[in-house]
Amino acid sequence: MTVKPILALDIMGGDEGPAVTIPAAALARMRYPEMRFRLYGDETVIRSALSSYPDLAAEAEIIHTDVEVLGTDKPSQILRSARKSSIGLAVGGVKAGEAHAAVSAGNTGALMALAKIGLRTMPGITRPALAALLPTMKSDVVMLDLGANAECDDENLSQFAVMGAAFARIVLGIDRPSVAILNIGEEELKGTDDHKEAADALRAVDLDFTYAGFVEGDKIGRGEVDVIVSDGFSGNIALKAIEGTARLVVELLRRAFRANLWSILGFIMSKRVLSSLRAHLDPNAHNGAVFLGLNGIVVKSHGSANVEGFANAIGVAHDLVADNIQQRIADDLARFNDQRLSAKEQQAAAE
Amino acid sequence: MTVKPILALDIMGGDEGPAVTIPAAALARMRYPEMRFRLYGDETVIRSALSSYPDLAAEAEIIHTDVEVLGTDKPSQILRSARKSSIGLAVGGVKAGEAHAAVSAGNTGALMALAKIGLRTMPGITRPALAALLPTMKSDVVMLDLGANAECDDENLSQFAVMGAAFARIVLGIDRPSVAILNIGEEELKGTDDHKEAADALRAVDLDFTYAGFVEGDKIGRGEVDVIVSDGFSGNIALKAIEGTARLVVELLRRAFRANLWSILGFIMSKRVLSSLRAHLDPNAHNGAVFLGLNGIVVKSHGSANVEGFANAIGVAHDLVADNIQQRIADDLARFNDQRLSAKEQQAAAE
Repeated sequence: MTVKPILALDIMGGDEGPAVTIPAAALARMRYPEMRFRLYGDETVIRSALSSYPDLAAEAEIIHTDVEVLGTDKPSQILRSARKSSIGLAVGGVKAGEAHAAVSAGNTGALMALAKIGLRTMPGITRPALAALLPTMKSDVVMLDLGANAECDDENLSQFAVMGAAFARIVLGIDRPSVAILNIGEEELKGTDDHKEAADALRAVDLDFTYAGFVEGDKIGRGEVDVIVSDGFSGNIALKAIEGTARLVVELLRRAFRANLWSILGFIMSKRVLSSLRAHLDPNAHNGAVFLGLNGIVVKSHGSANVEGFANAIGVAHDLVADNIQQRIADDLARFNDQRLSAKEQQAAAE
Repeated sequence: MTVKPILALDIMGGDEGPAVTIPAAALARMRYPEMRFRLYGDETVIRSALSSYPDLAAEAEIIHTDVEVLGTDKPSQILRSARKSSIGLAVGGVKAGEAHAAVSAGNTGALMALAKIGLRTMPGITRPALAALLPTMKSDVVMLDLGANAECDDENLSQFAVMGAAFARIVLGIDRPSVAILNIGEEELKGTDDHKEAADALRAVDLDFTYAGFVEGDKIGRGEVDVIVSDGFSGNIALKAIEGTARLVVELLRRAFRANLWSILGFIMSKRVLSSLRAHLDPNAHNGAVFLGLNGIVVKSHGSANVEGFANAIGVAHDLVADNIQQRIADDLARFNDQRLSAKEQQAAAE
């Protein structure tokens, strides 16, 4: 029997709030008719937004709150107000078993903190990781950790590899993904001791993924591997640097096309080309970063996601629930630990 | 009296060797007629390449070696062979005081190792840093460390700020550059303890630069600050991610323009636009990464640099020598340490 996913949606989060999240829920429901929703936020506002979507309104459950997380709140205040906000209640819904996954386009820091504290890490996982898809020259690549942890040791990195591979199998549909570690060189002796020890651990085991060694930052966009594992600090720096550079190049193009009449004509003739480029790089097409390694699934949408983007984030949550990523991670982690243990015993016996 | 820069050039380094480095030296000599060169490499090859540049040939000194660093050498072998290679002898020329700066397009790892071991760090500097210019929406930004050190503490980071500001004053010609620290968020409590302590130190002093706080990876391309300080690990990842993304976007554009007849026509009309974009992002225009903090100036050119690119790297070395960056760094570091010391004494007295 497959699970019928019940999703907890933070309706108030994101730049547009219900104007995006409600139509997105309706769109996602058409794609996955078996899915059910719990909608967290201001009931009056939600009811009014739902008026155009009677089918969704008929079966969605609304959980009211008018507490908001404000950008001006101090970090110490954020967590207190966030618990009772639509973000906090949506995460709480997953914790209470009322929903299988939460989806929010709200404040990343608040969502991350609430998810960590509320759901705690899965047995055996020492740190959760933020994973997302990035566009490449070929198909998408899964990258993690994108900023859940500023510092990571070798155990964290190898657990990220196990979790990232499980994620790639579901989201990219690849049976045996290749997994690489982000580093400052490809040679085995590059990077910190933690990088080298994580690499040793991944080389020593035989799981449902292929360890592909170290990759440098310029390989992220090549699409030669399916999963790239990183500490949260440099993963976040890389993600942001990629976003910033894509924006820089597009802005430079825009300026250059305005230069003179010929270039404006060229622009008009190239419009379709440029919009296909924009579509390839569109964050909405890759929307839905996931916190992996917690006792529950939490998906973070871009704050600026449009209806299609938020619906895609809901789709990611749906797939992870339907394919039971939690069980897959637990199973893979158990096999990883077994194999590591017996490798260490063999080593000890040999010495 | 201004110094007349004498440069030690590794003639054999880079993808093209003397076919690029000799014409580049001749070009740089026209730009800075007072500059003198010592040319390191295979004498027969150099003499033959010099035959088209009699003015350069007349006054350049050739130091012969036929030892090469091979890509297939093991790391342990590289250093041994590299010492006697054109890279090693060029660095040795700086060490012996025969040249003010060395410029090489050879193996980065070998150059870095030889420079560290041969020249050692300046008094008071705990780690050298690799600094370079990156293109932004406005003018260029100085970024360091780009990979000289995998791990950096707060002292390293604040020394990088002092060195990066001195570099920006010379290379960007800005009297009072703004300096930011690369981090995973802009709030004061983001990042590791080392980031927070480096920020505290920079806020506490009053030197010839403005401390501008933390910046995230997507701000590198904005051009809102003049210097971005980073640990060598995430700095290298960011640099490579930026290069990879620029390449990805250009490749996607190239493919998209080939789609149909209209887009091919659009491409032809947009050609000038696209080449102005390429020029803005061209690594040759930003060529010349510098190892700062050593007892001598060492400039690393891209291996794929063309004549213009290698001449630009020589130009960077020239400017750093002519404006005496070594003395500027020493002076600024002394002031930084004095101010830090008195701030700590005041703190101790107050407690």
